[in-house]
Formats: sequence, C-alpha cells, structure tokens
Amino acid sequence: MIYPKPLEDLVKQLQKLPTIGPKTAQRLAFSILKMSEEEAAKVSKSISEVKTKLKYCTICGSITDQDPCMICTNPNRSHQIVCVIEEADDLLAIERTRQYKGVYHVLMGALSPLDGIGPRDLRIGSLLDRVGEKNIGEVIIATNYTTEGQATALYLAKQLDNFDVDVTRIAYGIPVGGDLEYIDDQTISRAIEGRRKINL
Amino acid sequence: MIYPKPLEDLVKQLQKLPTIGPKTAQRLAFSILKMSEEEAAKVSKSISEVKTKLKYCTICGSITDQDPCMICTNPNRSHQIVCVIEEADDLLAIERTRQYKGVYHVLMGALSPLDGIGPRDLRIGSLLDRVGEKNIGEVIIATNYTTEGQATALYLAKQLDNFDVDVTRIAYGIPVGGDLEYIDDQTISRAIEGRRKINL
Repeated sequence: MIYPKPLEDLVKQLQKLPTIGPKTAQRLAFSILKMSEEEAAKVSKSISEVKTKLKYCTICGSITDQDPCMICTNPNRSHQIVCVIEEADDLLAIERTRQYKGVYHVLMGALSPLDGIGPRDLRIGSLLDRVGEKNIGEVIIATNYTTEGQATALYLAKQLDNFDVDVTRIAYGIPVGGDLEYIDDQTISRAIEGRRKINL
Repeated sequence: MIYPKPLEDLVKQLQKLPTIGPKTAQRLAFSILKMSEEEAAKVSKSISEVKTKLKYCTICGSITDQDPCMICTNPNRSHQIVCVIEEADDLLAIERTRQYKGVYHVLMGALSPLDGIGPRDLRIGSLLDRVGEKNIGEVIIATNYTTEGQATALYLAKQLDNFDVDVTRIAYGIPVGGDLEYIDDQTISRAIEGRRKINL
C-alpha cells in the first residue's frame, strides 16, 4: 500500500492531463483532498459540465454553450471578415487582444499527411460553403507557423482563389519585445521577408 | 465574451489548485474539453470520490479508505516504532523508500505561534496517549527542517521525556548527490553538526 484506492485513482486520472507528471498529480490530488467537500464538488461539477454543456458552433466550429455561438450571432461584429484558425483555443488568443472585430472559422486541426489528416478531415468544406453563400469580403488565414499550418494556409489560398474574396495571411516575424540576438534564424528571415515600408 | 460560461467556471476552479495559474488552467480546461465524455466523467468522479470515500485513520491520522488504516492494522509492521510526521503527504514520501517498517503518527501540522497553531491544534495528545498505553520503544520525530518543524520536534521531545521511550530525530544534512559548492550554509553546518564516525 502506498495510496488508498480513491487517491490512487485520482492521481492516475490527473496524470492524463498535459504537463501533469506523477509528482504534480500527487500534489494536486492532496490539495483536492484538503479542500472542503463543497469546493471539491465544484471542481468535479465544472469538469463534467464542460463536457455536457458545451458544444461546437455549427457555423464557425468554436466552443460554445449556445448554437450558433455568441460571436456568429453578434450583430456588432463584421460578418464580412472571417478569420480561419486551427483550433478553438486560438480564438481565445485572438479575442484577448480585443482588436479583431470579424468572425471565425475553426478548422479543427491542420493538414498533416503523415498523421493521415487530409482536407476532408478539416472543416474546409464548410468554409468554402460560407464563402460561396455569404457576402464575405476577406478571409484571414491565421493557421500556425508550422509545416502543417503553412501547408494548410497554402491549400486554403488555392481553394479560395476560385471565389471573389481577398485572402490574407497574418504576419509572422519578430515578437513584440523580441531581441534579435536571441531570435532563431527562421523567424528573422521570415521577418525580413515580411518587411513593410515605413510610412513617415 | 471570451469563454462560454462552463469553460470559464472550469478555468476558475482549476486556478484554485496550487501552482496552477490562469494559462495552465486554460490549457488544462481545453484538454479536458477534448477528452471523451467518458474520460472526463472519470476525472470528475475521482475528484468527488477522494472527498467522499477517504477519511483520516483514527489511530495514526493518515488518509485512508478503511479505519484503522492498512498500516495500523498490518501485523507485519513493527508497532513498537512510531514515526511522527507533520502531514499525511510525508507518509507517502517515507513509504516510497520501502525502508521503514514501523507505524506513523500524523500531527496534521506543526507548532506555529504566529499562525495561532498551538499544541492543542495538533494530534499531540493522541500521540502521548499511544505512547502511554502501548508498548512503544521508539518515537522517530520526522517533522520538517523548518522553524516550525524544529520547534515542534523540541516540544515533542520534552513531552516524551516523561515516558520510557527512545526519542530520535531523523538526520538532516547534505542530500544524496548534493554538491557542497551549491548547498546553503545552514545545511552544511547542520551536516557538520550531525557528523558520524566512519566505521572502517
């Protein structure tokens, strides 16, 4: 015996979460054990509720508790601009900036032939349908700057070429606050490639 | 809107856990969202079960699903040696070594006048009762090497002086694999203080 069974179960369950190893799982399990019964019930309830109450928006594919989601139904957002992202988490990152006023389209991944992920596995068909049916003026492709993300961006740009829509790619380069000395070569060459004229 | 409500709730709940900040909480919440409903239910169930199924052993104060616990009821362990620890987690650390064959006594904290924790707030009375009633030969004090842990050790040693029992303190010094150059002065002076004769 090291752990009583319910504690062992919890430690095992917590280890399924990303970046949680055996030691962290044990520390978290003990802290849950030290919570009041009411507090632990809240954590437990929150976990089951995200699975039961949340769904994917049938329009944009983001995570939502109402369908269509609050962004797709918001009349104050521009429905003429669609930002294409790989995962629903990316939406939060963009929303946090409070800069973007358009709508989204979540692909639910990126093209990856090695992992057997082709165009049919992503929400590309529904993106083309949206662009075909609605009055959309610009599609911003905001996939990650990885091999998969770049391949996906290129594929999408080709598909969207058949439509009367501007296709743009978000800028990649030196991060704000970045010091050239410590930035990798690829980012620097990408930043030089993406240089823009300074308007004085 | 950034998060749908159930997701926001979960992120808030996860942040109550130690070392889990807003970013980690968000990452964990998303990974729970990506689990199958069945898997998420298991996590949720494990959390509620540690609170409902586990209790403290009435003899030693450790966390257990049966009372008295498996260590206190184990006939293969030496019930003549009692190791006194601050918290139930410490028991696991000692058990992992598979070296110690005695039983335990969890104090549920350490003396800390600044936080208003006095002898009556700890399981000291029940320790003295155990030593008084039973045939105990040695009490190993394994409180932490902190101001509170040291004060507690000293207090216990004085209390136990009235009984016919050996009172020992676990050794503190250089950790195994420790390089003197990188070890703090207090640990070094403690290691010198605790030096033992080398038996050739």
